[in-house]
Amino acid sequence: MSVVVLTGGVGGAKLVLGLIRALPPREVVAIVNTGDDFTHLGLAISPDIDTLLYTLAGKANAAQGWGREGETWSFMEALRSLGGEDWFALGDGDLALHVLRTARRAAGETLCAITADFARRWGIGATLLPMSDDPVATQLDTDAGTLDFQRYFVERRCAPSVRGIRFVGAGAARPAPGVIEAIGAPATRAILIAPSNPFLSVDPILAVPGIREALMKASAPVVAVSPIVGGKAVKGPTAKLMGELGLEVSAGAVAGHYAGIVDGLLVDARDPPMDLAIPQARADTLMTTLDDRIRVAHAALDLAATIAR
Amino acid sequence: MSVVVLTGGVGGAKLVLGLIRALPPREVVAIVNTGDDFTHLGLAISPDIDTLLYTLAGKANAAQGWGREGETWSFMEALRSLGGEDWFALGDGDLALHVLRTARRAAGETLCAITADFARRWGIGATLLPMSDDPVATQLDTDAGTLDFQRYFVERRCAPSVRGIRFVGAGAARPAPGVIEAIGAPATRAILIAPSNPFLSVDPILAVPGIREALMKASAPVVAVSPIVGGKAVKGPTAKLMGELGLEVSAGAVAGHYAGIVDGLLVDARDPPMDLAIPQARADTLMTTLDDRIRVAHAALDLAATIAR
Repeated sequence: MSVVVLTGGVGGAKLVLGLIRALPPREVVAIVNTGDDFTHLGLAISPDIDTLLYTLAGKANAAQGWGREGETWSFMEALRSLGGEDWFALGDGDLALHVLRTARRAAGETLCAITADFARRWGIGATLLPMSDDPVATQLDTDAGTLDFQRYFVERRCAPSVRGIRFVGAGAARPAPGVIEAIGAPATRAILIAPSNPFLSVDPILAVPGIREALMKASAPVVAVSPIVGGKAVKGPTAKLMGELGLEVSAGAVAGHYAGIVDGLLVDARDPPMDLAIPQARADTLMTTLDDRIRVAHAALDLAATIAR
Repeated sequence: MSVVVLTGGVGGAKLVLGLIRALPPREVVAIVNTGDDFTHLGLAISPDIDTLLYTLAGKANAAQGWGREGETWSFMEALRSLGGEDWFALGDGDLALHVLRTARRAAGETLCAITADFARRWGIGATLLPMSDDPVATQLDTDAGTLDFQRYFVERRCAPSVRGIRFVGAGAARPAPGVIEAIGAPATRAILIAPSNPFLSVDPILAVPGIREALMKASAPVVAVSPIVGGKAVKGPTAKLMGELGLEVSAGAVAGHYAGIVDGLLVDARDPPMDLAIPQARADTLMTTLDDRIRVAHAALDLAATIAR
């Protein structure tokens, strides 16, 4: 039996870490957003895949929320002295992922194959699948013009007001090998949507033709973990973005966004009670410690098991 | 008035450093070997240009003989953990040169323009010219087969016995902008050939069509500094290589190799006396300290001045 989880970076990686501690890691398949991927200084960077790799391999910088523990910064210092663009921080150790991925992709390997190899070399037992081997680029229409995701997220720190979101290339992208199979596999007992940003981290995955359809017809229950905790987003631009898109910042709005795909919603215990058209469960969904992450994983799996019965 | 110097990496960089301390830096033009350049992990690496940049900017690791002072190695450690090729050591700060150069070349800039910009940003007053913007690759025919330069030099540590040396692409390469002009300029009062490896570091420069001819018809005297010190090469494979190529390890053999190009040879004071067809001067040519480098620069310039009279 296995569990499939759709995930973005930081917040989602916490749930995936909880899952691989709650279950044998080999039973966990993560389908990872690549809409944030971009080429910077000629390097192919996959921020969400990297966050998953670092988090699951125990190499993540927990205090900082991104990047590697014990990272050094000689590259950035030298880059600045040479007049290179320094708005996106590339740690010295982190560069190894980008340089090697870029070289291996240039040699014809797929992102999927490279990611699987990196995970294996770092002893990660779970399966990490990029949503697609084809390029998909999240772009935001904002009051500061059209911005590529990293320009919005990192350079502008999510300050511009968002009017719309596009996933350039999604229409022509194919799900990576194993994605559709994992969602539809008879051995899949639950499909989770991590508490990642629904609009920026999960929607790109759903925009890849075939994935939404596969979720709708999956025999396994699909359970989303609400990213709203006590009426707020834990981190990142989720709440600000929901306001800009004219949505209420609530688990109900999240349920509405995932309508037709999800069979259940795990809601934070602090949220006000609400009626939903789908089954819900409540738990403390704030994931500060490893125990929190395992607890949320169990709560989501329990809800899925209830629905499946 | 200016001085032009043909140079490879470490040994040559010492003389160029001596020159920019002996003269106003803006009067020094270095024409740098790029036959060692190669692409590694997708990165465009120019070892001799980088050694010049580090040496002239005061950033070189003097004890190690290559790379940056105070370098960190997080990239290599992470690269190894991911199964990347680790036979060529890339320091964290050093990567900035390679990543930025690769990105700027991909964007259409020439090696010449990028090198000039790097030198300017690091406050190097001398002019650094790659011998060519076109690719030239030094290859060695050895008893271990045909080897690219860095495979021979770094990976095999010059162990294979060399039978022949080729400069792939040299026939179609054009001198970089400024190279021929510098050699022939009326304001050029001396042209030096640094005590770099004549076969691996200077010959690639001479193999670029037009450079040898420009040296032969230059009005400024051409003076080579012998890389042989007390009958031995100071560093690197020069002596071993001369033996393998059937040459005597002597300043005389160096003079013979440069016959027709050089007008004078600066010979180490420890070498046995010898008759040469060209003027010679003797000095302690071992360059351990900065004062040594300045002294050798002056000795070479003095010999050139004598010949010019």
